[in-house]
Amino acid sequence: MMSSVDPMAIRQGDRLALAKALTAIENGTPESQIIQEALFPYTGNAHLVGITGASGTGKSTLVNKLALALRGSKKGSLKKIAVIAVDPSSPFSGGALLGDRIRMQDLVGEEGIFIRSMASRGAMGGLAHNTAAFATVLDGAGYDPILIETVGAGQTEVEIAQLAHTVIVVEAPGLGDDIQAIKAGILEIADILVVNKADKPGAENTVRSLQAMLALAKGENSLLAAGKHMRQQLTSKMRSPEKISKGWAVPVLSTVATEGKGTAQLVQMINKHRAYLASSGLWQVKENERLRRDLEVIIHDLLVDQWERQVDPDQLEMVVSEVIQRKYPPVKAAESLLSIKS
Amino acid sequence: MMSSVDPMAIRQGDRLALAKALTAIENGTPESQIIQEALFPYTGNAHLVGITGASGTGKSTLVNKLALALRGSKKGSLKKIAVIAVDPSSPFSGGALLGDRIRMQDLVGEEGIFIRSMASRGAMGGLAHNTAAFATVLDGAGYDPILIETVGAGQTEVEIAQLAHTVIVVEAPGLGDDIQAIKAGILEIADILVVNKADKPGAENTVRSLQAMLALAKGENSLLAAGKHMRQQLTSKMRSPEKISKGWAVPVLSTVATEGKGTAQLVQMINKHRAYLASSGLWQVKENERLRRDLEVIIHDLLVDQWERQVDPDQLEMVVSEVIQRKYPPVKAAESLLSIKS
Repeated sequence: MMSSVDPMAIRQGDRLALAKALTAIENGTPESQIIQEALFPYTGNAHLVGITGASGTGKSTLVNKLALALRGSKKGSLKKIAVIAVDPSSPFSGGALLGDRIRMQDLVGEEGIFIRSMASRGAMGGLAHNTAAFATVLDGAGYDPILIETVGAGQTEVEIAQLAHTVIVVEAPGLGDDIQAIKAGILEIADILVVNKADKPGAENTVRSLQAMLALAKGENSLLAAGKHMRQQLTSKMRSPEKISKGWAVPVLSTVATEGKGTAQLVQMINKHRAYLASSGLWQVKENERLRRDLEVIIHDLLVDQWERQVDPDQLEMVVSEVIQRKYPPVKAAESLLSIKS
Repeated sequence: MMSSVDPMAIRQGDRLALAKALTAIENGTPESQIIQEALFPYTGNAHLVGITGASGTGKSTLVNKLALALRGSKKGSLKKIAVIAVDPSSPFSGGALLGDRIRMQDLVGEEGIFIRSMASRGAMGGLAHNTAAFATVLDGAGYDPILIETVGAGQTEVEIAQLAHTVIVVEAPGLGDDIQAIKAGILEIADILVVNKADKPGAENTVRSLQAMLALAKGENSLLAAGKHMRQQLTSKMRSPEKISKGWAVPVLSTVATEGKGTAQLVQMINKHRAYLASSGLWQVKENERLRRDLEVIIHDLLVDQWERQVDPDQLEMVVSEVIQRKYPPVKAAESLLSIKS
């Protein structure tokens, strides 16, 4: 099969080839698989940093400033930074809104920064799946770190958080009562907490309530324990080596992204967390878990594909109509289609 | 197999048996399947009403008032109303918060109203799947309508919305800028819009901006068109008969749930939408689609179960470690495990 995107061109820094590869992933073309496979041996180096939080927290502006600061953080040389902007909260409206896109556009012309919004509409195979594929390609292309910006707190959010080595949860003062933050259900996955818009009234309170929640989480019946339980739920039936480390104390930082205040400290903390992951062995644990999950998802997809290719469509339609007539329940129908005795 | 819950007791109105059946579903026990299968022939009657919106909109209070109003809406007799409270936005904290639970407790003692919070933590097989199973059992038990309350706007949300015949999206004034409502990405799935806390400042503005968005959505490049596109994406590869009807103009209602204001109008509108669904044939279309999707999900689960039972765990571990060493990419590994030639 002829491939119109040369994976080695991506390795050599061809941004157009890179952009085309990401589009191929979004469109779910067979070529996207070929590209990922070709780049796979070169992956495993990039620091994947998830940045999540409700809209209204100024998250996009923060990501913008962070990308610029990270690029210059390595002495003597510029790093290649990538930003993936995902909007899983809007399955219908096709991804980021104009407002976000405009703010993000600031980075489009910057050397060494590659930015891509993920179209959530029409995403073949799910947002989390595509985000992982984007990360593979950008990692293989030598981008490091890769910032993954997401909105909301659904299941997709959790999946994307699992992908990242470091998860930053962004809050802001005045977004509703304190309980709101708990409801979001994403605090438990945070490695770093950021209170953005720290110049606004109530910022001190937001910092304090986050710190109080973190302190609470150290107890036995804690949010962290709940998070751990959930992670165990989420991990597959395959044997999983993940352990929740107690060696990292989640910090609460304050930023004013519009003025660049606190960005340098956040960069330091991101790098500190990376060093912690490496020295504790957690980096390798996370990496292994991720590949294991990838493999599992692919296996499931292939199983469904196999079945769909071999099923008789007329038989399927007949069974569907018998279920609709309530002749027998869906489980019985499925078992008969798969020739399983219950 | 001995079953400790008698499905016929559920049919006859035994609330304890019903509660036990729902617990069996949450725990994913084999018995839960038996119960669903026994009740399946009696299902297909209940009006499933989804009520969704961000936290802070007073949604739980509205659902509470709505359940009471619906119960008395049929002249001369009380209806049996069920409420399923789902909190998919909090995968870690185990479902509804204390605040919500307390408000919901108002209904616990009410005759003819059955209420159940779904524990999202530890939900086997996913929230959307369990919500559908809950609806099946409650439908079979004669509850009608069944109110399904959810929070957030993730993929789980969309799946639960697909389950409902009628989707009510609740907004409230002062929850952030107008763009927030669009970001939520759930307006496109609304059959009825409600601005609750309509006595608060800014309520008029919220109503107007929702109406403006609905007007906008009638255009060609509309949110509705995007929604339709998404629905097509979501529906399976099996042939799907769903058509988006143009016969229903989404109304915007105002309520003050704490005082019961607007509740009667909302009940009327819910019943009007039900009548519309029946007369237009959409009720049957939705019902068919739902059973078709149920069947598909069950087939996928069974395929994975089958594979997990027959795979050699040692071979699996070997392949995983070779992927981690980057000897070959996950897709190749999956194909070799499934003996597929690529």
